Amino acid sequence: MVDNMAMPYVVGIDIGGQTTKMGVVDTRGQVLAQTVIRTDTYDDENLFVAEVAEALDKIIRESSSEGKIRGIGVGAPNGNYYTGTIENAVNLKWGGNKTINFAELLSKKTGGLKVVLTNDANAAAVGEMTYGVARGMKNFIMITLGTGVGSGIVINGEVVYGHDGFAGELGHTCAVRNNGRLCNCGKTGCLETYCSAIGVARTAREWLSLTDEPSILRSLDNISSKDIYEAAKEGDRIAVKIFEFTGMMLGRSFADFVAFSAPEAIVLFGGLARAKEFLYEPILNSMNANLLPLWRNKIKIMFSQLKESDAAILGASALAWEL
Amino acid sequence: MVDNMAMPYVVGIDIGGQTTKMGVVDTRGQVLAQTVIRTDTYDDENLFVAEVAEALDKIIRESSSEGKIRGIGVGAPNGNYYTGTIENAVNLKWGGNKTINFAELLSKKTGGLKVVLTNDANAAAVGEMTYGVARGMKNFIMITLGTGVGSGIVINGEVVYGHDGFAGELGHTCAVRNNGRLCNCGKTGCLETYCSAIGVARTAREWLSLTDEPSILRSLDNISSKDIYEAAKEGDRIAVKIFEFTGMMLGRSFADFVAFSAPEAIVLFGGLARAKEFLYEPILNSMNANLLPLWRNKIKIMFSQLKESDAAILGASALAWEL
Repeated sequence: MVDNMAMPYVVGIDIGGQTTKMGVVDTRGQVLAQTVIRTDTYDDENLFVAEVAEALDKIIRESSSEGKIRGIGVGAPNGNYYTGTIENAVNLKWGGNKTINFAELLSKKTGGLKVVLTNDANAAAVGEMTYGVARGMKNFIMITLGTGVGSGIVINGEVVYGHDGFAGELGHTCAVRNNGRLCNCGKTGCLETYCSAIGVARTAREWLSLTDEPSILRSLDNISSKDIYEAAKEGDRIAVKIFEFTGMMLGRSFADFVAFSAPEAIVLFGGLARAKEFLYEPILNSMNANLLPLWRNKIKIMFSQLKESDAAILGASALAWEL
Repeated sequence: MVDNMAMPYVVGIDIGGQTTKMGVVDTRGQVLAQTVIRTDTYDDENLFVAEVAEALDKIIRESSSEGKIRGIGVGAPNGNYYTGTIENAVNLKWGGNKTINFAELLSKKTGGLKVVLTNDANAAAVGEMTYGVARGMKNFIMITLGTGVGSGIVINGEVVYGHDGFAGELGHTCAVRNNGRLCNCGKTGCLETYCSAIGVARTAREWLSLTDEPSILRSLDNISSKDIYEAAKEGDRIAVKIFEFTGMMLGRSFADFVAFSAPEAIVLFGGLARAKEFLYEPILNSMNANLLPLWRNKIKIMFSQLKESDAAILGASALAWEL
């Protein structure tokens, strides 16, 4: 039996396409120390894992938690809860077209600490259920709007992993059936190609090239979703319309997700979810217009209120308490 | 405590748009007596419930199970497991735009027998899991191809009811985004408008009016899905193409369902599922073409092998054992 008093800390690691955040967390959900490293500067998973282990070592010493770590929880794209592997993660520079025994690799590099791993969006759902707006909810869908569009589905208070551990890839459901945008996954028309940070920037580039309408965005070399948000806040009409379009696309897909699991709420999280004031109404209107009458005006759209870096770390770390 | 030996029978009732099947079932899943009444000849739910109670009384006497019925399980469109109500069931002549306390009404008419009720497709899923091809499966999706397209989703061995009891309305997810067919539910483009028995007949009428291609179907006044199946078996080219189209539509929607819950299999049931030889390949090819690489060629498409009338009754009755 593990002595909780002797092992009062867990580590949470959130692996994103661009950066990886990690932190040491105590039993009350306080992040005692945290750090960030790049994800996308490594071509090889072994080099990346070595860097993670080194960064962890630093924050473990910083928080004086040496020898008191109960385990490590990891949220990663295409992370498999059942096997601890990351499989064919096309959004990770070192992760495409292979199966990486990530939990095993990291355990070896950290002196045998136990590692549990899942989809980054599933981890975020656990974090939101434990510390965020979904506290007390038994049925909700977490949608992460980051580099990609991820999802974590909670039914009866439990994350859905499915038969193989990969359930909840709603970013790769079909948003546009014909002539849809090409996705990293090889398919076309995936929701992610329209509603991720990258998808929104793609919308901006397309629209700017199609019209002559003046826009702050025209002066920028490399438009990011953050630029579009800043422009919308300054009243830029194209920027506002980009969010209206993005919200409309999300809302109509959400209506189909509701038909699946009849959740109490859909919770949005991630960089793009910061544009709440521009996304909320378009999402809600579009979702309601596409819902069966029985659900119309009954499903909540919520935005995570957790600090983004904390939420990802907390969610991943929560997995480790079950070790 | 209920004495199983003294209450060794349950009743299963399956309410469809056109007919309602009911039977008395023993602990081994034998249907001891069964009967069928019309669903669509009543304008009022009270008249319908009275007719159900009368028909039940007859088969209970027939099977000598008076006083030995543990409870009644009902599968009904828009049936709510949590409340025992049928809500806004547009496919039932007496069920649109209202909430019917069906479980309560039926209990009163049967001398106080306990009644548990769910979606007809959920009941079919329970039947398939208990007695059919899904035996032993923890994660599968049941799709019923009847008057409408229904669904029952099983995750971790349990039917998904969702926050409000109505989860699993996959027949009303969007199959065609623009200029889709008008659905009974008021939306357009629902999967059900293409892939139900009625949807398939609609496809036939549309296609026959658009071409001059010869077809056995042209000689018929009122084309049913059964007619199309018979024609396909005789090699009628349009009939075969109708099933290819229907299978393609189902397959691409199934790919999105897989992205949600990563099931081991999708199980097809209902009148249209009899056309297995014409539907199987088109469904499988279309699903695989639309799946993320990680699921390609890994998800099974299965067809119920239970006798249709038995399966619906068995599924509904299985709910009553839990009473």
